[in-house]
Amino acid sequence: METYHYERLQKFTRDVFLAIGCSEKNASLASEVLISADLRGIDSHGIARLPGYVRLKDHGRLHPNPNVKVVHETPSTGVIDGDKGLGLVVAPFAMEVAMEKAEKVGSGWISVRNSNHFGIAGFHAMLALQRDMIGWAMTNAAPLVTPTFSCEKLLGTNPIAVAIPAGEEPPFVADFASTAVAYGKFEILQRKGLPAPVGWAQDGEGRPTTDSNAIKNGGGLLPLGTDREHGSHKGYGLGAIVDIFSGVLSGANYGPWVPPFATAGFMAMPDAVGTGTGHFLGAMRIDGFRPADEFKSHMDKWIKRFRDAKAVPGEKVLIPGDPERETEMIRKEQGIPVIEPVIEQLEILASRFSIKL
Amino acid sequence: METYHYERLQKFTRDVFLAIGCSEKNASLASEVLISADLRGIDSHGIARLPGYVRLKDHGRLHPNPNVKVVHETPSTGVIDGDKGLGLVVAPFAMEVAMEKAEKVGSGWISVRNSNHFGIAGFHAMLALQRDMIGWAMTNAAPLVTPTFSCEKLLGTNPIAVAIPAGEEPPFVADFASTAVAYGKFEILQRKGLPAPVGWAQDGEGRPTTDSNAIKNGGGLLPLGTDREHGSHKGYGLGAIVDIFSGVLSGANYGPWVPPFATAGFMAMPDAVGTGTGHFLGAMRIDGFRPADEFKSHMDKWIKRFRDAKAVPGEKVLIPGDPERETEMIRKEQGIPVIEPVIEQLEILASRFSIKL
Repeated sequence: METYHYERLQKFTRDVFLAIGCSEKNASLASEVLISADLRGIDSHGIARLPGYVRLKDHGRLHPNPNVKVVHETPSTGVIDGDKGLGLVVAPFAMEVAMEKAEKVGSGWISVRNSNHFGIAGFHAMLALQRDMIGWAMTNAAPLVTPTFSCEKLLGTNPIAVAIPAGEEPPFVADFASTAVAYGKFEILQRKGLPAPVGWAQDGEGRPTTDSNAIKNGGGLLPLGTDREHGSHKGYGLGAIVDIFSGVLSGANYGPWVPPFATAGFMAMPDAVGTGTGHFLGAMRIDGFRPADEFKSHMDKWIKRFRDAKAVPGEKVLIPGDPERETEMIRKEQGIPVIEPVIEQLEILASRFSIKL
Repeated sequence: METYHYERLQKFTRDVFLAIGCSEKNASLASEVLISADLRGIDSHGIARLPGYVRLKDHGRLHPNPNVKVVHETPSTGVIDGDKGLGLVVAPFAMEVAMEKAEKVGSGWISVRNSNHFGIAGFHAMLALQRDMIGWAMTNAAPLVTPTFSCEKLLGTNPIAVAIPAGEEPPFVADFASTAVAYGKFEILQRKGLPAPVGWAQDGEGRPTTDSNAIKNGGGLLPLGTDREHGSHKGYGLGAIVDIFSGVLSGANYGPWVPPFATAGFMAMPDAVGTGTGHFLGAMRIDGFRPADEFKSHMDKWIKRFRDAKAVPGEKVLIPGDPERETEMIRKEQGIPVIEPVIEQLEILASRFSIKL
């Protein structure tokens, strides 16, 4: 493990994106989005994925400078074709369109097709905050999740992020996968050779398992709620809504047809039902509902009441976004820890493109 | 237990609403919404609640013929004041406004204040289906739920419903509380004197409990995900989003300030932060994204693929809305079973208002 200043990781990432043909503007934006994941402590979605984006380019699945455009619209809705661009660039573009619509008619909702992995959903939702808007971001992803009673993996971890401005308090930022846990938690256990808690995964026959390699061996991640008795059909429903809004509304792939992030050699599903990966982004102007100051002072009250609630011994009640914001403050100052296997992969990129890590 | 034809229950409900002063139109609509819960198998939200609505009237918390109006709006957003009306009537009105906005600008989003319990969220979301729109419905509710690490009940069971049209297949209708289970499941166990499974509730100190009376005795319902290790912060985040969209956006009460449904004698919180209960309703035109036929044929494909997935032995993979639709078909034909304690309460109403059950 080594620790890097986030600007150094961001510069390296930018240089790699430049090396695969991105414009200055696209490379800068993409590196900012990617490293925001490391800053916020979501290591699985940050620089660890950089080699994957390069593989997408190597295999012809990525346009470094895509011609992203609105292909269908009404005043408050629309579909954007990402032209095989980096989701890291396509999603902020779509969010910008959503926010322009919100400026004009109160809200804007954009479904995106023909895109790729967009980093952390929270980044895109948070773009709305600076404009006194509530931001939404969702994306579908390659199938890792078994719906309730299914032995087949049919859904991705399909995250939802909602960012809500406050006044004196920091904003409310929920950003979570529709599964019991993110896949990254299994990767950590795999590296350490440890089992997983019951309730995170099932085996190929749909039985509970503690095997942290279960998902590689025919098993699946469980939806939020874990089993039917504890509401897994709700987590499944949530993941399905994300999939339909991102994939079926836009004309992207959906369900088991969503392409994997960057498996070597993978080109396209022979029976693709759409183009690329799909996202869904939205923005609602606060003052489309009530005066912004009034809303914000009530959000402050909401946040304070929850934060001050009586907690179980040794814990405190957190507001969604608290842990990530605290991690960001710490990591901006103390640097971002990167594990050895990731450093090795980054060194390969560094030597291939003659740039310095 | 006795079984009644749904039209008989609907007529009785209508007569009771007429007796407390509702107009023909309001009484008919309210009874249709209320009994739709019994038809769809969500008994806790149907005729069992009728005495509660009457209590609301008795305690001056209900206007039988409210002056529901839009108090703030943009082309795609708005706030409606429910004027202390039945949520059963206020929510369909708000949904109508959302759909009119969607007709004009692609989508419509209405936050509602000063309302009361609105029955099942699914009914309101499904109103969008007949117009080739996707419908959303959420509501906040009196605090029963302890957020992750909280010993205090701060959120209601805050349901989310999303209804999505399909073509040949029946529509996708997700309608779920943001908790591990609905409170109604505890009421059933209480009547039978049975314990609850671990993972549904906690006691007053935040410890797991199987006491089915725990929520009455200082404990709380657990968010979807049950505990931190299995993602309860996600269920908490979801319930919080529903609360903020329904309560803080509209100017209704929120969090622990949401008034109880119909506790005898209860008038208003001395430190109320808004007016009444809040809802959030939305509609998006499918063809605001892609041609409706195209969307529907892909929804059919989505639904068939999930329904045909390999299932664990003895089960099948269901599409959200399947169980409720099947129950509705059966109950329309075979009648709605009503348990003795509910019948006793209905008999009291029948004798009070001189109408026949």
